Amino acid sequence: MTEIVTAAMLVIGDEILSGRTKDKNIGHLADIMTAVGIDLKEVRIVPDEEDEIVAAVNAVRARYTYVFTTGGIGPTHDDITADSIAKAFGVPCEYDARAYAMMEANYAGRGLEFTEARKRMARMPRGAEHIDNPVSLAPGFRVENVHVMAGVPSIFQAMLDNVVPTLKTGAKMLSATVHCPFGEGAIGGPLGEIQKAHPDTVIGSYPKYADGKFWTELVVRARTQAALDSARAAVEAMVAAQGR
Amino acid sequence: MTEIVTAAMLVIGDEILSGRTKDKNIGHLADIMTAVGIDLKEVRIVPDEEDEIVAAVNAVRARYTYVFTTGGIGPTHDDITADSIAKAFGVPCEYDARAYAMMEANYAGRGLEFTEARKRMARMPRGAEHIDNPVSLAPGFRVENVHVMAGVPSIFQAMLDNVVPTLKTGAKMLSATVHCPFGEGAIGGPLGEIQKAHPDTVIGSYPKYADGKFWTELVVRARTQAALDSARAAVEAMVAAQGR
Repeated sequence: MTEIVTAAMLVIGDEILSGRTKDKNIGHLADIMTAVGIDLKEVRIVPDEEDEIVAAVNAVRARYTYVFTTGGIGPTHDDITADSIAKAFGVPCEYDARAYAMMEANYAGRGLEFTEARKRMARMPRGAEHIDNPVSLAPGFRVENVHVMAGVPSIFQAMLDNVVPTLKTGAKMLSATVHCPFGEGAIGGPLGEIQKAHPDTVIGSYPKYADGKFWTELVVRARTQAALDSARAAVEAMVAAQGR
Repeated sequence: MTEIVTAAMLVIGDEILSGRTKDKNIGHLADIMTAVGIDLKEVRIVPDEEDEIVAAVNAVRARYTYVFTTGGIGPTHDDITADSIAKAFGVPCEYDARAYAMMEANYAGRGLEFTEARKRMARMPRGAEHIDNPVSLAPGFRVENVHVMAGVPSIFQAMLDNVVPTLKTGAKMLSATVHCPFGEGAIGGPLGEIQKAHPDTVIGSYPKYADGKFWTELVVRARTQAALDSARAAVEAMVAAQGR
């Protein structure tokens, strides 16, 4: 049997919690994880506070195969993710020689001062490995199973593209969607019976509502095609029977 | 001094974690909380699994003034929020007499069967108070400081409109945004000094990136106008000095 691979995500930043910035990274990571067969099991949005970040990282890194973080790795005083990750792992946060040299050369080449603020972006927990940043150079990093990436969506996505090929992936969850023109109240009972009869699947029911009318999308998920097909057929028959 | 009022949000649903549905409720709640002076301190997205929901509810309800949940209160087998909240509080989950009677009368009036699935939506933890649902009738509910609402955005928003007037609100966080045409690397150092000199404010730096160019939005937040004005003036002077 193929291994189940799990993941959690930490979104770090006061601006998400205040509503000032609307997160665009959760949905993207969720899509990518589903595509490669990793089960995203939990997401937490935490403020720019060291104790909160440390507690959240330690809570999830022990439970899941992988952890992905976004946010808080820029050059300003409120970017405390690198320090917090180092603290969570009990290692020093320090200039990474390779990141420092690479950034120093880059800024020199552009005639820009390598300010203290910019130098902050070369700081990582000791022993961290780089996650390349093809957009704006300053790398993300990985410590054990924790992947630390930028919050700016275009940079996060580029970093994640570099991370995904390094991950072990699990049995892909197959899925099939059955459109149901009836509300959940009409089909909830028989749908529950179908779920019971197909324990090797997960059947989700997603209510939709607009213009005073309910309808439902029924999603069957399974790790084998046979299980998927069997449950899908049962759901389709049930919906057809409702329409009679 | 005005009290600080805090909140956490739980988004309940496999469909958010799989990427199939993109959450629209976090940003809305965050905006509303900020508008009324409640600090949203944490958000967790958890799967449709009882143990996970119970653990998350119990973790956050003890820490924050209020908890708001979305999702999992519909009529289908995968809607397990009511049972999970009851379990978290150690009370039975049962038909609420008033919700049951109201829904029974409504379905009868529309000539629809009051199916077992629809009856599920009248189940609540014993002692829960209703949160009215002007969109589709079936109520949300409150147990102590935990407010349980629907996941469909239009219904969630309508329920939240009914909840907000019942909440005690804190000192509103005032904010001022200073546009900065430079990247964080240029202004990170002096901005950190301004933060140190204005400890009664929270100064956030939000990097923006597009078309190969960085700029920054600097946001000063404070609970008094005097503190806000003083820090804002310092940030504006710093940005102007960079441009010289």
